[in-house]
Amino acid sequence: MRATVLYGERDIRLDEVPDPQLSTGGDAIVRVVAACVCGSDLWPYRGVVPTDSPKRIGHEFIGVVDRVGPNVTKIKPGDFVIAPFYDCDMTCANCLNGVSTSCLHGGWWGADDRVGGFADGGQGEWVRVPHADGTLVAVPAQPTPEQLPGLLTLADVMGTGHHAAVSAGVTSGSTVVVVGDGAVGLCAVLAAKRLGASRIVAMSRHADRQAIAREFGATDIVEARGDEGVAAIKAMFDGIGADCVLECVGTKESMDQAIRSTRPGGMVGYVGAPNGGVELPVRRLFNTNVGVYGGVAPVRNYIEELLPEVLDGTINPGLVFDLQLPLADVAEAYAAMDERRATKVLLTP
Amino acid sequence: MRATVLYGERDIRLDEVPDPQLSTGGDAIVRVVAACVCGSDLWPYRGVVPTDSPKRIGHEFIGVVDRVGPNVTKIKPGDFVIAPFYDCDMTCANCLNGVSTSCLHGGWWGADDRVGGFADGGQGEWVRVPHADGTLVAVPAQPTPEQLPGLLTLADVMGTGHHAAVSAGVTSGSTVVVVGDGAVGLCAVLAAKRLGASRIVAMSRHADRQAIAREFGATDIVEARGDEGVAAIKAMFDGIGADCVLECVGTKESMDQAIRSTRPGGMVGYVGAPNGGVELPVRRLFNTNVGVYGGVAPVRNYIEELLPEVLDGTINPGLVFDLQLPLADVAEAYAAMDERRATKVLLTP
Repeated sequence: MRATVLYGERDIRLDEVPDPQLSTGGDAIVRVVAACVCGSDLWPYRGVVPTDSPKRIGHEFIGVVDRVGPNVTKIKPGDFVIAPFYDCDMTCANCLNGVSTSCLHGGWWGADDRVGGFADGGQGEWVRVPHADGTLVAVPAQPTPEQLPGLLTLADVMGTGHHAAVSAGVTSGSTVVVVGDGAVGLCAVLAAKRLGASRIVAMSRHADRQAIAREFGATDIVEARGDEGVAAIKAMFDGIGADCVLECVGTKESMDQAIRSTRPGGMVGYVGAPNGGVELPVRRLFNTNVGVYGGVAPVRNYIEELLPEVLDGTINPGLVFDLQLPLADVAEAYAAMDERRATKVLLTP
Repeated sequence: MRATVLYGERDIRLDEVPDPQLSTGGDAIVRVVAACVCGSDLWPYRGVVPTDSPKRIGHEFIGVVDRVGPNVTKIKPGDFVIAPFYDCDMTCANCLNGVSTSCLHGGWWGADDRVGGFADGGQGEWVRVPHADGTLVAVPAQPTPEQLPGLLTLADVMGTGHHAAVSAGVTSGSTVVVVGDGAVGLCAVLAAKRLGASRIVAMSRHADRQAIAREFGATDIVEARGDEGVAAIKAMFDGIGADCVLECVGTKESMDQAIRSTRPGGMVGYVGAPNGGVELPVRRLFNTNVGVYGGVAPVRNYIEELLPEVLDGTINPGLVFDLQLPLADVAEAYAAMDERRATKVLLTP
């Protein structure tokens, strides 16, 4: 089959690779209908995270189940399924606690699963899915083409934005600031709106993303950053900051801005994977009672809650996709995101 | 009047100082009935925090209102009152958000208040209390001598232990670990029990404190620390750790132990003032979805909730006092705590 392989800095190719095979008894083979490129895929693409040897890549996909192992009881061939950006059994203590990203038996796409066997990357034609009954969520009926982008966001960005909002404690009447206007930040706006936030400020400098943020429920846009941005936020909220700040970037600057934009006693919900230099200043946090909660989002635990609203159009997170390309053009997909010509690219094998 | 003055490392004296005077219109003069020494008082006493010039000290006291300024409407002369370990107006945005330690107009005992005028330290005969209507809580009736220790804990340690539990999200059925067996840690056990925790582990090596922890609701005691302590905790909770860990010390070691004892997705509620070297390891927190929330405890906001249970004996946090001395023996009170001959000392002027 064909699948995406990263060779090194800005060297990404669609290669012929071995077809996946059922191996563990609890796995499934899924034919990918749509996949996408994640902001986090850009770290190795840009060489910030070095690539020592060619590596399969991609962790967001939806598709149709082709066949399942003998121990799979819930998922059936023909099911249209959503896969989260990792695999998990949904039966271990961490999964049951709502933290399936810490599944005691789970693993990551494009790597050997903890229970053994290779789990393909998502940017390919087929994927072997470990723990199929835990990992996959079957959509009740075959979706329409228009529903595909929204469903695909449940694999990562919508669930991740939701996790930022949940971690920050967004509830009815909360005041919210979202730091970051990538696909996750935009989904965080949508999640905050859905959870009842009374006011949602999107920190964004891009007109096209501001427009989506507005459509998703942002009541205000702040373009300023750093000290100026913090001052603008404080001025909007009694001089003290917002109840909940959703950090969706993961840099030193964005985390600093998030913490300083939070009112005393408020919470930073963070989902931006922290890159070099991110610090949590314990004295400032202690003195102001600002909390920090979040992490790698357990999106699998959120799919059942969000799926019905995607299917019936109550929420439309699929708007974050602004470019669709065939899988054969995966190199262009990466380049478009790297050069900020696209917010998020949908790939169809 | 007589009040406690810290001159330098382990040099603390009861001095004759000026009597306090009403000055701001919204203040009150309180005759101290009981005060106490706080673990945090030991930092300057030990010279860890240097003392450049003689300084009034003490921030926990209860007493009787002698007179009030012309703008005071709620508090009346003759009221028996509890003062939190800071002053606050209870009308600003932060106070209304439940974070009175970040009062926009408040201040600290033994220092000039933000609105002007000196607010006496608590370890003395009299105290000028700024923002009397906000700061002070009047007890409904004159308390009995037996009630005084419990009431005094509402000035700091009981409210601080409660804040650790609330910040960690302790609720019915939570599994809880308390790091620290000082007065705050013991009160945190009591607070967790009160909030419905199903299992409470006290990490303690002192038999007398273990006994109080048991009386306050601890179901288990762990004496081990560091890696061994973390392993013991994980073994008790599905191999993954506890839902809520209450950090009541403030050292690098205690915070590390707290974070590593928390299950994925769990929360560290911390109230130990962070001293040199405390770090929040963002990558570990992110990867495990462990949150960190807490800080300098807004105990004023908790007094109304806790007071009835202290008065009717439902909770008995006054047990944390294991030594009572006259104010004249304040130097011995500090020495007893410094040398760990006492957990917490009650002083009576």
